[in-house]
Formats: sequence, structure tokens, C-alpha cells
Amino acid sequence: MVVPQLKQIRRTYGFDEISIAPGELTVNPEMTNTDFSIDGISLSTPILAAAMDAVVSPKFAGHMSELGGMAVLNLEGIQARYENTEEILNEVVTSPQEEVTRLLQKLYTEPIKDHLIAARVEETKRNGAKCAVSVTPASTKRLAPVAAEAGADMIVVQSTVTTARHISTSQVGLRFPELLEMVNVPVLVGNCVGFDVALELMETGIHGLLVGVGPGAACTTREVTGVGVPQVTATMDCAAARDEYFKRSGRYVPVITDGGIRTGGDLCKSFACGADAVMLGTPLAQAKEAPGKGYNWGMANPHPALPRGTRVNVGVRGTLKEILFGPTSLTDGTQNLIGALRVCMGMVGAQTIKEMHNAEIIMAPSIKTEGKFYQLGFG
Amino acid sequence: MVVPQLKQIRRTYGFDEISIAPGELTVNPEMTNTDFSIDGISLSTPILAAAMDAVVSPKFAGHMSELGGMAVLNLEGIQARYENTEEILNEVVTSPQEEVTRLLQKLYTEPIKDHLIAARVEETKRNGAKCAVSVTPASTKRLAPVAAEAGADMIVVQSTVTTARHISTSQVGLRFPELLEMVNVPVLVGNCVGFDVALELMETGIHGLLVGVGPGAACTTREVTGVGVPQVTATMDCAAARDEYFKRSGRYVPVITDGGIRTGGDLCKSFACGADAVMLGTPLAQAKEAPGKGYNWGMANPHPALPRGTRVNVGVRGTLKEILFGPTSLTDGTQNLIGALRVCMGMVGAQTIKEMHNAEIIMAPSIKTEGKFYQLGFG
Amino acid sequence: MVVPQLKQIRRTYGFDEISIAPGELTVNPEMTNTDFSIDGISLSTPILAAAMDAVVSPKFAGHMSELGGMAVLNLEGIQARYENTEEILNEVVTSPQEEVTRLLQKLYTEPIKDHLIAARVEETKRNGAKCAVSVTPASTKRLAPVAAEAGADMIVVQSTVTTARHISTSQVGLRFPELLEMVNVPVLVGNCVGFDVALELMETGIHGLLVGVGPGAACTTREVTGVGVPQVTATMDCAAARDEYFKRSGRYVPVITDGGIRTGGDLCKSFACGADAVMLGTPLAQAKEAPGKGYNWGMANPHPALPRGTRVNVGVRGTLKEILFGPTSLTDGTQNLIGALRVCMGMVGAQTIKEMHNAEIIMAPSIKTEGKFYQLGFG
Amino acid sequence: MVVPQLKQIRRTYGFDEISIAPGELTVNPEMTNTDFSIDGISLSTPILAAAMDAVVSPKFAGHMSELGGMAVLNLEGIQARYENTEEILNEVVTSPQEEVTRLLQKLYTEPIKDHLIAARVEETKRNGAKCAVSVTPASTKRLAPVAAEAGADMIVVQSTVTTARHISTSQVGLRFPELLEMVNVPVLVGNCVGFDVALELMETGIHGLLVGVGPGAACTTREVTGVGVPQVTATMDCAAARDEYFKRSGRYVPVITDGGIRTGGDLCKSFACGADAVMLGTPLAQAKEAPGKGYNWGMANPHPALPRGTRVNVGVRGTLKEILFGPTSLTDGTQNLIGALRVCMGMVGAQTIKEMHNAEIIMAPSIKTEGKFYQLGFG
Repeated sequence: MVVPQLKQIRRTYGFDEISIAPGELTVNPEMTNTDFSIDGISLSTPILAAAMDAVVSPKFAGHMSELGGMAVLNLEGIQARYENTEEILNEVVTSPQEEVTRLLQKLYTEPIKDHLIAARVEETKRNGAKCAVSVTPASTKRLAPVAAEAGADMIVVQSTVTTARHISTSQVGLRFPELLEMVNVPVLVGNCVGFDVALELMETGIHGLLVGVGPGAACTTREVTGVGVPQVTATMDCAAARDEYFKRSGRYVPVITDGGIRTGGDLCKSFACGADAVMLGTPLAQAKEAPGKGYNWGMANPHPALPRGTRVNVGVRGTLKEILFGPTSLTDGTQNLIGALRVCMGMVGAQTIKEMHNAEIIMAPSIKTEGKFYQLGFG
Repeated sequence: MVVPQLKQIRRTYGFDEISIAPGELTVNPEMTNTDFSIDGISLSTPILAAAMDAVVSPKFAGHMSELGGMAVLNLEGIQARYENTEEILNEVVTSPQEEVTRLLQKLYTEPIKDHLIAARVEETKRNGAKCAVSVTPASTKRLAPVAAEAGADMIVVQSTVTTARHISTSQVGLRFPELLEMVNVPVLVGNCVGFDVALELMETGIHGLLVGVGPGAACTTREVTGVGVPQVTATMDCAAARDEYFKRSGRYVPVITDGGIRTGGDLCKSFACGADAVMLGTPLAQAKEAPGKGYNWGMANPHPALPRGTRVNVGVRGTLKEILFGPTSLTDGTQNLIGALRVCMGMVGAQTIKEMHNAEIIMAPSIKTEGKFYQLGFG
Repeated sequence: MVVPQLKQIRRTYGFDEISIAPGELTVNPEMTNTDFSIDGISLSTPILAAAMDAVVSPKFAGHMSELGGMAVLNLEGIQARYENTEEILNEVVTSPQEEVTRLLQKLYTEPIKDHLIAARVEETKRNGAKCAVSVTPASTKRLAPVAAEAGADMIVVQSTVTTARHISTSQVGLRFPELLEMVNVPVLVGNCVGFDVALELMETGIHGLLVGVGPGAACTTREVTGVGVPQVTATMDCAAARDEYFKRSGRYVPVITDGGIRTGGDLCKSFACGADAVMLGTPLAQAKEAPGKGYNWGMANPHPALPRGTRVNVGVRGTLKEILFGPTSLTDGTQNLIGALRVCMGMVGAQTIKEMHNAEIIMAPSIKTEGKFYQLGFG
Repeated sequence: MVVPQLKQIRRTYGFDEISIAPGELTVNPEMTNTDFSIDGISLSTPILAAAMDAVVSPKFAGHMSELGGMAVLNLEGIQARYENTEEILNEVVTSPQEEVTRLLQKLYTEPIKDHLIAARVEETKRNGAKCAVSVTPASTKRLAPVAAEAGADMIVVQSTVTTARHISTSQVGLRFPELLEMVNVPVLVGNCVGFDVALELMETGIHGLLVGVGPGAACTTREVTGVGVPQVTATMDCAAARDEYFKRSGRYVPVITDGGIRTGGDLCKSFACGADAVMLGTPLAQAKEAPGKGYNWGMANPHPALPRGTRVNVGVRGTLKEILFGPTSLTDGTQNLIGALRVCMGMVGAQTIKEMHNAEIIMAPSIKTEGKFYQLGFG
């Protein structure tokens, strides 16, 4: 058969297909530094808690802050719609599985209230935490100023796929330069994938980029719409855009890998691929302190006509401190994530996150079936 | 070892191995247009219902038409063999699994009746639908004129593998140019794969091409005969032939991906690979309105000596409207297929199906086991 | 890391990783010809029954012959060791699984008797069949003449890996040219893989080559010793050697794919890869007429210190005629193997086995789990 | 999308992805020689027993020695911490699974006693064995001289990842040249991967290299930290470094593959990849003579904050003699490992381990699920 000139199919990689090769020298884990900073905000724990109702409440944000990280509060979720969130969360977690998508669709039709936004921001800050809040592009113009006024320290503009250019007749499009003038705090934007899109977003002046479309455990974007980019490739592309943009402009726009990270191994690989920080959903939903009480559900879930997430029983695995710093008796990589990162940095010979970006990545496929981890490329 | 010059083994791709990358700009789903047209027949829903007895009846054709699509009636199935189809369908769906292949083999030996063909075409049109009918190459000369005379609006000539050249002594070969003179309605031909075969078929003057050999869920062609081409590659090859033929002739012959589409994701990928429309079997057999009552079986099934399909319990999943347009509470991609397509087009930045053809395809393997979807290339 | 110059790792292919692409023209299956001939012996069914005790008895050889194929009788198995084989076979098939390897090891220490060899050869011929017998290289000098004298029509010299050169102190090496002078019937040799080894074996003057090391279902060579070559690559390499040798010498030495064929799909792929015939074990052990009564075990099994086969419950699936020619109600590809081959040839457009050698092979991975066939590369 | 210049992702290979191709000539297994020697110590069985508490006791070392191999005693495990090891081992193997990691963490905090080190070395030698002992880099300066003084015949310095250069403030770094002056016995170092690291370690003057990071069955390094290199690639890289170093210096530093070997097939592949010997854990923990009584656990396990191993029920499979030399009735490759090696060498045509290094390696993927071995690349 004469094979015509077809469009190129690029090979992409996910966490399970790669591993990190040890370095040529090793470092004592105690000598490693995991600091992350974005536009003046510095964190000793380079982890953001995802803007999901099962993960972040004002109280949880306080816990994250105490442990060196930062939580992002969803301004279009339960916290901004209901006075008594505890009651609503109980309703969600006790619903039978076959009814829960329908219930979520109903609960998320309750209007968002400005006074609740203000209350949640203040509550978060009373808990001693910097307050980061998330909004979708369509609501940014209305909600971002409300949150900024109430004292929010960071605005996260987030949708499944965000680009610098959006075609729409029904909405007046969001322009990031205008938003940056409107609110005087750092703005994170996402999610995106791809070198060009990342570069274009950075050129609008935003302060950080969330990377990842499709890979999250509580998200079925790829199955429903066919769209998704494996997280290793997505992170490497956007990190390359960051480095290119830095070379051109002198401004360093951190890249935060968001989605699909379940274990210390995944987290370490994100940094080896070029991430400056990571955003975690499910691993933190498993904390005793999380509002989801052992469940998690995606932000795309409540869409009335096309739900793309589902409520997942993730279980309560330990305290937030155990999850981030141990000590632990579990050997499956779900606890002591920062300890794992430091041990990894030691084996790689990296003293800082920036040095981790130089770690060697190898292709070494593995298959995970029914909770069992099978390493195809291993003996 | 000295390795001799062996024949090339071309790498091909199926739906589960690829995904679609988001575009450089995004579009509001409400602004997308999913129109499909073939030789003057226009559809707002670019979906054909497959010519399977468990999927299409004259009544079902009416429902498809109301929702913007089109159904193809199998002229060599139960509808053209039996007066009382309801009774026959009941017999099939209530048969024990171990006896059903034998039963189907028996039922399909009943002769095809011309008066039933006429009756089914008229019934379909009474239901307000355009009437498309399918015939196998060997019966085309006899059955196609009968259907055309009765008012059929489109003839689909379909077998497992159809080429422009067929060697046979026992039959007087079918020639498409002669058929096109004989019936004055659009002619779709399939199934085919491969650039050369597609090009040759288009050069005979036919109006549309069905693409796909081997991938369907109710078809075991590959296991029985070793023959089959993964659907992504098949679609890309034939779409390239369409473009090449258009360049040469100025005539645009639409390419319709047929087989192996189970979810919105698969459907979206078909368009991203170059399809102008898709033909669905199993996903529509799951509609409340489908004659199969929750079962489906392949057209190749009744072959007495070498059955290559089997009756599959596909379940009743929702109304045809829910399957095509939602709303839905399911999150597995089997409902609101057109909604999923529009969301996908939005993320890709495509306002029309033609623009979808430019979407970036990436290789991102996944494995589906026991109904669970595992994305190998994802976190 | 500086990557050193490592030895090349060649990519090889097995049946489950490839499929056959349809041809540019199609042929009516009734017009296809499946003849196979080797040094004057002609078969209309290009299938040899493997020299396994669970597959071939003199009676079974008669059935194979009636259906156009040929069976190979194992001269170092039960038939040549025991007068009353029925009793021994009963002992094997009724043994508990945990004791059966030990039992087989014991049973196969009974000495081989020349008079039984003669009796089995005569019995086979009385059943109207050509009599092919198999011996291992170490016993060939002693047993081949006995069988030839008794009237055997073909000698098959077979071990796990056979090459033209063997280094040994404890045995006087077998030389094929000497053997060919000693017996005046066609000699088949195997198993081998690799272009060079196949070429070297053909140059010794032998009449046919058995291809395959490691892939059989009743053989665990690869797990025990790490040695094995996937059957698609093995067949393509040896077929290339056959073509090269034919170019050099004008003599055509048929290549017979042996091992790992379970379905019509596998069988068709063997021919598409260049095989002139196939040797089947398990698929024929499933015949009602097979002596194994629904079980099969490998020839390498009885080795006292390192058993590499095991008794497998393969079940009784149908009569030999149903397995080879149908009709069948099964849709999994295990029955009507020749019917499947003809349908495949039709789709490929091949009228002879030689034309099948030109079929296009594509890479289209699939995974089979727990009896379920999952086609990775398909939708 | 414009794809930026990303860092290379190197393809690596594990045991399940490759197999060994037969050679162009074959050798009678009885004529093969499996000798291994390291700095004057010669073994007829090229197998070291891993320094794990479930595998090696002084008594077990005696058994290994009788069978031609050598055991390595863990100087930081139970043997050096407790007088009555039998009691401690009982406590470990009878602990419920959910408490065992915690228990191990506690047990391994008991201090190491110099007099126990001396006693274990003497006990080992009394059993007629050469005594090899292992220490971690951090304890080497303190423990290695104690063991050497007590008569140890070989020092193994072993940690998850060992390089020639280690950055640390809290410890005075270990330098291998200094160690070599301090103890007058052969020094093995590991584990390492990578051409450069292996070369650098050899240049320090050490006598042997342990190869492997991440692949062991009782080790979850890859899942917890993302770090790991498949064993085939690791072995090939280090073997290449050995050959390069030999070319430069004339000194041959043997390479010992450690981790991930479960079957005869894996063991044979290690040698085909260039290993001079192998170190086994789990396969020997399955011996009746092993102190673990059917269990095994990793050395990295007891780390209090980040356990990376787990206690695995490996079962008691046979005597050490059966595991190494058979005879066996098992057909899964777990017994008669040396017999399997000899048969493999025969099929490959290799009379010595050095000749095995020239065996052809092919890529032939397989998948092992739930104890079942599925060969993807095979029929």
C-alpha cells in the first residue's frame, strides 16, 4: 500500500511510563532544599491543595499553611454557595453512588453569594494562611474583584482548558492583562498544555501556570471528549516554555503540575520533568483534615448536561502531616511525600528543585492493575 | 545474526492509543457547528445508525431523523425476511447464550421478500425519515433497484471488506459505475481501509465511503481471520485519500468511520482523524428505542460455516435523545455524544467538523480492563 | 549520562501484536487454493499435527489424512514405549495436577522398543495415512532407520533448538547429509529460528524446516531459560532464508510454523508471514479424536531435572472435521480453521498460499487476559 | 504545535521485555562451565545470596558454600543486633501484615553489637563457608574493620544508590580508596546503575560491582521516590563500563546483577546482558534452609520515616539444592536455576559465562498478571 503523507502522531508520556535515573553523585537528604516561590509568596513545601470542595475549606487552608504549603479555595463551589457547608458535604458523602452525580448537579445550581466569598477569605486568613482562591474564566470578572477586596492573596483562574485566546459570542471574553490591572495580587492561570499555549499565556503577564489536561483520577475528560495530554509530556513542554520565556524576558513564571499525582513517585517525577511546584487533589482528600471525609469529586462534575467527573471513594489514609512528612508505616508511596522527594533528590544528587529539573528521565513502562503496581520494564 | 530484508511492518493506531491535544485557542461550545452533508442530504447530527437488526427498524429510523441523524436499514436482515419482526426479535433476545449463534444462523436462512423491502422503505418514510438501506455486494444488483423503486433515499453497499475489484467465478461481479446508473440516489460503499483502495473506490463515482475493518465490538473478524486495521489509522488513510481525490477531481466524497466507537471520546477522535461522520452500532443499540432490547449482534454473525460475530448483552442505557444530546448523570462517556463533541471542539478551537480535522493527535496509550478504563500514558 | 555502545536489541513480533491488512482486490473464498507440497508429498490442507502424545496416535493420523492434512507420530513417546497406550493415556489424564509432572517423568523412562515403532508405522499406514515420524537429534541415528525400514514416509528431526552445528563430547553428533543418505524419505528439521541458522540447515539438503522456539502454550521454555523468539519474526526470518536459498540453489524448502497457533487468526497470520504450512498442537488436542482426551502436554515435559512443559486442560471442543472445516457455532476463531483461512485469503486477495506471502502485515497490538481478547490497537 | 527541544527520554528494558535468541550453533549442556571468580575467590555457582535477614544466616551461608555459591551476611540486620535471632525472626513472621512494617521499624532500632559481628563471622566460617558481609556506606568505617578483624573474607558496601561521590555535612564521607587500604579483603560496592557511575566506582579500585536500583520484588523504591532503572539496561550499561575499564586498565571488575531475578529465565537473561554473577533474594528466601521461613523483607524497609520495602509471603518452595540444581517437578522456572542456565547456554552455544555475554538479546514484551505469565510478543 502506498502510505500517504499523514499528520504526525507525537509520542507522549505519562507518569507510569517513566522513571528517574539516579545521578552521578548523591546528596544527603537532609541537605536538600524544597523551597518554592511565586511573585513574592514563598513556600517551604512546594505543594498547592487543589481547588476542590472535598479538599479545601478555610480550616484545611490553615493546616496546609502550618505545614509550609498553600491551599486554593474554590470560589464556585459549596463554600461560596452555602452558609452551612458541613450539612451539604454530609449530604454528598452519604448519597448512594448511583444518585450522587445527579445530587451534585442540583447542589451546584445554588447561586454564589458575594458575602460568602468575603466570609471564606476572612476565615482562611484568620486561620493564619495566605488565601488563594480559584475562579473559572467566565466568572473571573465578577468574582475576582470581590475576593481581592476581601483580602485574597492570590487569584487562580482555572478551567479544563484555558488559552490566551477564546472565541465566544455569549460572553465578553476574559483578557488576562485587564485582569492583572484589576487585581493587585499574583494570578495563576490554567490548566494548559503545550509549548505555544504556555508561552502565549506567560506573555500576558500572569504569574504562574497550572499544567495538565485530562490526567486526574476524579476526572474523565479523556474518556468523554477524547482530549487529554499525559502529564510528563505536558510538564516538560510547559517547563520548556518557561525557560524560553525567561531567556526572552528575564521573568521566571513558575510551572505547577496539576493532576494525576497519586504517589511520592509521581510527585518526584513532576519535579524531574521541570515542575516548580505541584497541585494535589486526591492525595490530600485522603487526609483526616480534608472536608471530603474520604471522598473526592472533580470540579467539572456538576455540569448539568455533560458531567466529566465522578465521586470517588478515596478513603481516609492519615493526617495531613503524615501524608506530607510522615512518619508512616505504609510502603505504597502515598505518605511522607516530602520525605520521598528529599530521598529522591538525594539519589539524584539534586540540592534544590532547580537542580531536580536536570534529573535524567528514562522510559520504563509499568502497568497498575486493580491497585497492584506492576512494573513492566522491571524484573 | 544477519537480519535479512524483511517486509515492513507498519505501526497502526487504535482509539485507545491516542488522544486529542487541546488547541492554541478555545471556542465556546455553543458556537460550534456539527453539520454533515452527503450529495445533497444534510444532517445536523453527523451520525448514521448502523445497518444492524438490533439497532435499526423503520420506527428507530424515525427517531434518528427527528434528532438530526440518519439510520441505515439492513435489507438482508430480519426486516426483509419476516412479516412479524417483533416476534423474531423476541426469539433472539430470549435465547440462551449457548444456543443463540445457532438460532441466528437458522433465522437468517429465511428468504428475503421484495414486498417486505418495499413495505419497510415506505414505513420508514411514513415516520418522517430519509430512508437509507444497506445491501451486500452479492445482492446489490437484485435488491438495490427494488429499494430504489420503493423510494429509498440512499443505498449503502456494505460487506466486511469491499474493494473496487473483486475476483469471482460464481457471481457476476458488481461494478459501481453500473450501479450508479441503475439507481438515482447517493451510494455509500464500505467497508474499506487503506489509501489506495479508498482512492480507487472514490474514482468509481460513489458518494461516500464507510471506513473500518475489524474493530467493532460485536465482530470478531480479527480473531477468526487475523484481518483488521485499527480505526485511527484506517480513518486517517481514507481521509487522506478523500483529500487527494478532492485535489484531483474537485469532488468531495465524505468518509464515515464505522466500528469500534463506544464513547464520546472515540467519536471525537474519529473526527479529529478526518472523519466527516460516524456510523454507530452498539452505542445506539443501548437506546430504549432500539429494536434489540439491550442486545446487539453483528451482520457477519449468521454465516453458517464461519460466524464472526456474537450476540452481546449491551444493556439499555437511556433514551436515544439522552445518548445523543443528554442531559445525563453518567460520567463514562456513553451519553450526550454530541454534547461531548461540542465540548471537544471547544477545547480544540474548532468551529466546524472540517476544522476538527486539523486537531493535533498524540500517542497516549491506555488499557481498558473489565470495563475499567486505565490510561497507561496518564498519571 | 554518556550512553556506551551497547549491543543492539532487535524488536520482534508475536501474533497478538500484528494483524493482516485487507488487499487492494478481493477474491471469492471458493476460488482460493490452500495446497501444500513437500518433496513430492502433497496436502490439500496445509496443516501438520504436532508430534505430541496427546495429539497424534496412528488412528488420529488416519483422520488427519482423510481431511487432507498429515500427522507426525512421536517416536520417543508413549506409542513407542508401551504396548497398551490407552491405559497409559488414561493414567496421565486422570492424575491430579500436582502429581502429573512427576508421573510423566516416570512414564517416559520406559525404554523405546523397535518392534513398537514398526507396529505404529504399519498401523498408521493401515489407516490410509502417509506416516510421518519424529525423533530427537540424539536418537535419530538409531531410530530413523528403524522407522524408515518399517515404511515411514517422512522423518522429522526435532528438538527445542536444532542447528546444523552441535558441540558435544558425550554423543557422536548428528550430521544431516549423512542422515539423508541413510533414509530415502523426506526429512523435516526443527525447531529453528533466525535467517542464518535456517539457511545453514537448508544447505545440508533437508526438505523442510520447522520454525519456532518458545511460543507454544504447553511449553515454558522462555520462562525457564529466557530463550524464545516470537513467532511472527521467527517465521518472517526463516521465510526470507527460504527465498534466499531458492534464489541461490533453485530448490524450494518449505517453512512450517510450529507453536503458538491457537486460532484461525494466528494460522492466517503465519501464512501472511511466509509459512508454507503450519504445525498445530493444542488446537488439534481439542478434537474429539485426539488421544489426549481434552489434555495436552509438551514434549520437553518429561525431562527429569528440568521439565519445561506442563499438562494443560485444553478441553474437548469438537470433532476434527469441525475444527478444520466447520460448520461451527463458535465465534472465537478456534473452529473451521481452513474456512477462516479461505475467508482471509479472500479479503487479502490471495488465490494461493504463495500469494498470501505478499499480504500486508501491520503492527496492531492486542492483549488477551483470562481468555478475553482485548485488542489494544482497536477501538 | 511547535515542539521545543526537550530532554531526551531514553528507552530502557526490563527482564519481561526481552528474551534470548538461540545461537548459530548449540552446545551440550554438560559441556558448559558456569565458574565465577572475584579477586581470587572462585565459585562454581555464580550466585550470591542477598544480604537480607530473611535469606542469610551463618547456617545458610554454609549451605550456599556447599553448593558452590556464596552468601552475604547483613551486618546491620538482626544477626548483628540480637543474640537470639530465632526468636526475633519468629516475631517477624508471625506478625499480622498490617503491623509488620511498624514492628520491623522497632526491631531495627536495637543497637548493632561488635561482639555479635565477630560471633556471626566466626560461626559462618565454622560452617565451612567464605564469609562475606554487607554494610551501608554510613557505617562502613566503623563496622568493616570489625568484620575484617574477625576474619570476614569479603566486604560488601551496599545502599540503594551508591556513587563514588556523596555530598553530606552530617557524615564524614566514605572514600573507597581509604577503605581498600583499611581492609585487606575484596570489596564489592553497590548498588549502582549507569555507565559513568560504574566506571567511576571501578576507578576507585574496588573489586566488584552490584548492579540494580529499584527492581526488587521486596522493594518499592520506584513507587515511593520515582527512582529506578530496569535491570536489563542497568546490567548492559555496567557491563559496558566493565569492558571499557578493562580496556583502559587491564583489570577486570566483575559485575553482579542484583534485584528482580525470580526465575531461571531472568537469571539467564542477566548473564546474556553481561553479568558475571547474580545476587538473589526472594528465590533463595523460598528455600527450606532460609531463615525467613517463607517470608522476605527488604533492607530499606526499617527506615522509620520512609519505609520502602514490605514483608512479602514468598512461600517455602523446596530445598536450596532443588532451587539451585533440581531435580524438580515444577515447570515455572523457579527451581533448578543452574540447570536452566546450562540448558540456556546450550541453546545459545555458549560454553562459558563470558561467551554468554555475546548472546543475542531481542525485544519481546510479556506481561505477568496475578502470577500468570503472559507473553505479549508470543503467540
